Amino acid sequence: MMPIITLTTDWNKNDFYTGALKGKILSHYREVQIIDITHQIKSFNIPEAAFVVRNTYPHFPEDTVHIIAVKSETSSKNPPILVKKEEQYFLAADNGIFGLIFQENPDQIIQIDKTSSIPTFPTLDIYAEAARKIISGVSPEKLGEEKRDFNKRIPLRPTIDESVIIGRVVYIDSYANAITNISADLFYRVGNKRKFQIFVQSNTNKINKISKTYNENPEGELLALFNSLNLLEVAMNGGNAAQILALDTDSTVRVRFY
Amino acid sequence: MMPIITLTTDWNKNDFYTGALKGKILSHYREVQIIDITHQIKSFNIPEAAFVVRNTYPHFPEDTVHIIAVKSETSSKNPPILVKKEEQYFLAADNGIFGLIFQENPDQIIQIDKTSSIPTFPTLDIYAEAARKIISGVSPEKLGEEKRDFNKRIPLRPTIDESVIIGRVVYIDSYANAITNISADLFYRVGNKRKFQIFVQSNTNKINKISKTYNENPEGELLALFNSLNLLEVAMNGGNAAQILALDTDSTVRVRFY
Amino acid sequence: MMPIITLTTDWNKNDFYTGALKGKILSHYREVQIIDITHQIKSFNIPEAAFVVRNTYPHFPEDTVHIIAVKSETSSKNPPILVKKEEQYFLAADNGIFGLIFQENPDQIIQIDKTSSIPTFPTLDIYAEAARKIISGVSPEKLGEEKRDFNKRIPLRPTIDESVIIGRVVYIDSYANAITNISADLFYRVGNKRKFQIFVQSNTNKINKISKTYNENPEGELLALFNSLNLLEVAMNGGNAAQILALDTDSTVRVRFY
Repeated sequence: MMPIITLTTDWNKNDFYTGALKGKILSHYREVQIIDITHQIKSFNIPEAAFVVRNTYPHFPEDTVHIIAVKSETSSKNPPILVKKEEQYFLAADNGIFGLIFQENPDQIIQIDKTSSIPTFPTLDIYAEAARKIISGVSPEKLGEEKRDFNKRIPLRPTIDESVIIGRVVYIDSYANAITNISADLFYRVGNKRKFQIFVQSNTNKINKISKTYNENPEGELLALFNSLNLLEVAMNGGNAAQILALDTDSTVRVRFY
Repeated sequence: MMPIITLTTDWNKNDFYTGALKGKILSHYREVQIIDITHQIKSFNIPEAAFVVRNTYPHFPEDTVHIIAVKSETSSKNPPILVKKEEQYFLAADNGIFGLIFQENPDQIIQIDKTSSIPTFPTLDIYAEAARKIISGVSPEKLGEEKRDFNKRIPLRPTIDESVIIGRVVYIDSYANAITNISADLFYRVGNKRKFQIFVQSNTNKINKISKTYNENPEGELLALFNSLNLLEVAMNGGNAAQILALDTDSTVRVRFY
Repeated sequence: MMPIITLTTDWNKNDFYTGALKGKILSHYREVQIIDITHQIKSFNIPEAAFVVRNTYPHFPEDTVHIIAVKSETSSKNPPILVKKEEQYFLAADNGIFGLIFQENPDQIIQIDKTSSIPTFPTLDIYAEAARKIISGVSPEKLGEEKRDFNKRIPLRPTIDESVIIGRVVYIDSYANAITNISADLFYRVGNKRKFQIFVQSNTNKINKISKTYNENPEGELLALFNSLNLLEVAMNGGNAAQILALDTDSTVRVRFY
């Protein structure tokens, strides 16, 4: 059975870093599925990397090893760690990303022992080596010392009062659709069947219905729907909402019920 | 023997869509070759996607499954379909793309039964699931109902009179070479050994010979050749023809014989 | 054991060239690891391609076949060749790239016999076919005639006098770090424990210490370190040095010892 190793990095150019890492993995173990999740995370953008990993890993089978090389330089405050969750393995610097990926505590956290590390390219030796051990069946405890917790960043959650939800854009996808942090659950719980208006960034961009699909709307019309992640998404049929409205991650999306 | 699944999408950012889809495929079946054809089709650009698929699939072996996720949202008018041709399988929304990929009728067309589909991300459940069944040896008829035909878009063909061919640029490649829809066959049949001038977009950009290779010309000189697809291509040795002449898909290329 | 074929190309768009090549390889041999090193070499940029191959191949295992499709059009002066070095195989046009990849002579050079080649897409038939033969165990001599040497380009080396090293930027990485051709060895040999100043492009951008890591410096501060390749790299913690200082490959970096 072929082991699986995924890569999520901000090496946008498909830099020689990618090639070196893949070569190192294959020189340990030839029959491995190396899966490029993406190399196009914005440089050092931990929330974006967390969003991508959080929404892809649940589709992978048990024993998959995910290498996340975004802000991966290690230090005594941000040591390299291995996290085990739902029978999958995650390797990254302990830079706060894990608090954004997981809502609940993982099964195991190991601070990886440093061996002979190139400080400027930790992914190559620390993570590739750790990945090799895991897919060879070495048990996590052999890689270093158990830790109780990882560093946490607080994920941005929407603010709520009786009739208003104020959320934020957390991801812009390939079609310039803007995905927010407002879940369908939250929306329907606060809304409680009332009418609503969704204000995108300013008061002039209004939406007052939730669509089921993109293409039930005319091309170029602003629309909102709950997407495959069950998150409120501001979009246009035919693309380009974020560009036309100048939305970026962190733009405000406000829902007012009445 | 490893089954092969290819991906052609407009998820330009290598969005989390790509990772989710790959994970889903691998969780069904680990020993599969997942081949990225490209994720850089322009958003919703069906002719470009068709061009890429038409010119890559003939190189793949029998039983390859091609997933084409460009304008893949389905509807009752554009249901998800499976097309079998030359012992290969193609999965896409019935949005007109197949008429641009194939000149001749396929061997089989199946309208895929919808199961529990996420309407905003059909590729993930409908196509990944259909691909899984095909590589597991399920016969196409088991996936849905047979259809007689797919939706057709008429491919743009050159217009011809006795001494003029008016064609169009159909693809700009990585070197900014402009590939037209004028085939070598058509060119030599209409030309019948006469002299010719090729006008690229305007009357000022003229070419009056067909080169065999790029590098038989000085760098930066406009040239025309029949490329590996046997299509007339306007190029420069050293690249950049399309940028310098502001060519895009749909720009006109006119051949006048005299 | 799965054979490995890597691809380094300037087909930036993940053009249909990539798909055709992968299909052709797989139709010969399904159980192969096709590894994308990068498709984002700048068009025709041989030094950049050489830099990437030189710094990735040593991580790959024996018998890996590397296809390098950058300026790959062949001619009688630049025939397609196979180079064997350290039990690995390299396929490219003999366009000078090998002199930049290898410091020492390779073990074997074969000029590949042309068969029925598409002159405008040599990678597809010449290299894919040669790769197929190598991974099938055909010995290199069967692919063509042995050659004594390949075409050479002289790599740019730093100029040195008693107290000054003048080097150049040879690669800009994904974080806009500028990697120079000044090695740690050279630096410490010429410097001989003296103090120094590093001038980046102009006399106003000065650095007077060597850092061990990026993040020991405040964000946005210009720094220099010896990277994982043991080359002097001008960087900023948090990225962007090359953009802010308008550095590109060939920009000058001068070290003055005193």
